Amino acid sequence: MKRSFIREILEAIDEETISFAGGLPSLNLFPTQDLKEATIKVLDNPKIYQYTVSNGINELREQIAKRYSDEGFPTTKDNILITTGSQQAMYILAKFFENKDITIEEPSYLGAMNIFRLNKLKMQGVKLENDGVNISEFEKSFKNTKLTYLIPDFQNPSATTYSQEKREEITKIVEKHDGILIEDSPYSELFFDKKMPYISAKLPKNSFHLGSFSKTLVPSYRIGWIRADEEKIKSLLIIKESIDLHSSGVSQYILAEYLKDTQKYEKHLQSIRDDYKAKAEYFSKQLKLIMPEFKHQLPKGGMFLYGTFGDNIDTFALVQECLKKKVVYVPGNQFYIDKVPNGEIRFNYTHSNFEQIEKGIKLIKSCL
Amino acid sequence: MKRSFIREILEAIDEETISFAGGLPSLNLFPTQDLKEATIKVLDNPKIYQYTVSNGINELREQIAKRYSDEGFPTTKDNILITTGSQQAMYILAKFFENKDITIEEPSYLGAMNIFRLNKLKMQGVKLENDGVNISEFEKSFKNTKLTYLIPDFQNPSATTYSQEKREEITKIVEKHDGILIEDSPYSELFFDKKMPYISAKLPKNSFHLGSFSKTLVPSYRIGWIRADEEKIKSLLIIKESIDLHSSGVSQYILAEYLKDTQKYEKHLQSIRDDYKAKAEYFSKQLKLIMPEFKHQLPKGGMFLYGTFGDNIDTFALVQECLKKKVVYVPGNQFYIDKVPNGEIRFNYTHSNFEQIEKGIKLIKSCL
Repeated sequence: MKRSFIREILEAIDEETISFAGGLPSLNLFPTQDLKEATIKVLDNPKIYQYTVSNGINELREQIAKRYSDEGFPTTKDNILITTGSQQAMYILAKFFENKDITIEEPSYLGAMNIFRLNKLKMQGVKLENDGVNISEFEKSFKNTKLTYLIPDFQNPSATTYSQEKREEITKIVEKHDGILIEDSPYSELFFDKKMPYISAKLPKNSFHLGSFSKTLVPSYRIGWIRADEEKIKSLLIIKESIDLHSSGVSQYILAEYLKDTQKYEKHLQSIRDDYKAKAEYFSKQLKLIMPEFKHQLPKGGMFLYGTFGDNIDTFALVQECLKKKVVYVPGNQFYIDKVPNGEIRFNYTHSNFEQIEKGIKLIKSCL
Repeated sequence: MKRSFIREILEAIDEETISFAGGLPSLNLFPTQDLKEATIKVLDNPKIYQYTVSNGINELREQIAKRYSDEGFPTTKDNILITTGSQQAMYILAKFFENKDITIEEPSYLGAMNIFRLNKLKMQGVKLENDGVNISEFEKSFKNTKLTYLIPDFQNPSATTYSQEKREEITKIVEKHDGILIEDSPYSELFFDKKMPYISAKLPKNSFHLGSFSKTLVPSYRIGWIRADEEKIKSLLIIKESIDLHSSGVSQYILAEYLKDTQKYEKHLQSIRDDYKAKAEYFSKQLKLIMPEFKHQLPKGGMFLYGTFGDNIDTFALVQECLKKKVVYVPGNQFYIDKVPNGEIRFNYTHSNFEQIEKGIKLIKSCL
């Protein structure tokens, strides 16, 4: 088993390298002052330092549940399991479905694919189109696997957003075969124009919905969650507590305190959306200007811009050259089950500033 | 797979119940003021909120390494992998040794046994005596398994501390069969009189040494670590990053800041040792006074006092009665591979105050 390309890159590159690689939020957008206030408020209570329950503190689970309910997806705290980042949510599910077959998008999130491999799930890839997976291919696979992992909002890596029609088709297929949907939603709040309804909202008994504060607030608290049917949450809890007893209590108490002021959080979310939208547009514009041979679509949200040079360029070979010139991205082949080199690239546009975006694209262009 | 008895109890009991069950540190001993100072110092740096490296931040790994080196066990930061509590350290190792046979003490830590079951390790129990495992039984098992999990200092649950002789015997056997020792040391710093040398110090290439800040400082940061040969750390890193990318960055930065003042930490450790020693002695004294039929030895450190009523009392049945009277402990059968009821009990003495200790023992006595 090899390490993730992205994690290796993140650890290997120096400060000067312009990184379009990781899914790193912008440092400048962390609400450090508000988090500091929340932190200081909870610090005097020694309870925050003690062992706590494995499923997560009540206050935080209630706040997360309320957000679902407010969006028309009835949820209580008993439907929520707090996890050590969304990554652990995925790991818990992979352990739960160990050795099973699973239908995934291609390309897909490489962290999830690594977890599936580690837990011996057999992945079947279905081609991702501009508005979601190819539906007939999806049903052909799903009727056998009865288990799927999808990222319907601003997908990682492709930035694809599922159309309303395809969301409904997926719902029907999951229901028809009484299977399970794992819906990964780390980017759903990062929409530029509008939020689409979760597919899981129509499949409350047949879904695991994954959320995270890593992309909307800060990654280093390592707090994500799974939303599922109460009985399913109970089964997952056994795995969760075996892995780390519980997620950081300090992180949970600070978050619960910060989230009390929902308006503040909403305002923060809006500021990220505005910032990321401006960056996505700038990134796209610079690509068209500097490197028009790279074909791509403007994302509708999230953190990534995806596209291709076509079949004549091997972006996996190219990135080695780019690294020498101190710029890095993730080559598209990393997001496929069989990592055959291709001309695709995933760019993260959230972590760099405008100047770095322009400079980075020029450096890549010079490597072609 | 069932949930851990302790985790279930922890979540089910109310505030009024006197708990001798979990391995909970005393709330009053958390150095909240010093942790607050360290927290406020790091809070203004937005870097603490970003994704960080999977193996743990340099500053913290260096500080942990230095403590080993100072005790005569040469260690660098590259020998350290930061984990989400010692529990995750165990999980990572269980995943690494999936499906293998493993020699364990009986009784042993039930959290570890649950993790081993979840990852299909086949456990072979070796009887624990007053000064460590029975050596001939141990070698008989280890020559086949070549893998063992031991808690040589103030063992959980039995409070057993390995003699110097048995430490040396274990070293010889592990070397002779070129096997692996997993040495779990969450309680080693909680000695009442003296610290024994780690067995791993003589087996730097054949050991994984597990440590944690949960018992010495606060549990809710969820920071533990594995100390091992550099090559082994690299292998474990792949599993670690699949499980949760990295442990809480905020926790790591706060801890690294707090630990800069080593004298402060040493003073804190000494205050815990003093407090726990007084409580252990009081607990033992009260047991002799109130419930002399419970035979036990005074612990030399750690958090637990272990003993037995003999074969006439089933402590698993008894605890159901005790729960009604609002007192709880962990029945000894939970710590065996086959959970056959017996007359043994593990008492945690660190979480309760003197009044609760006396009252709790009287309540148990009334259930006999």
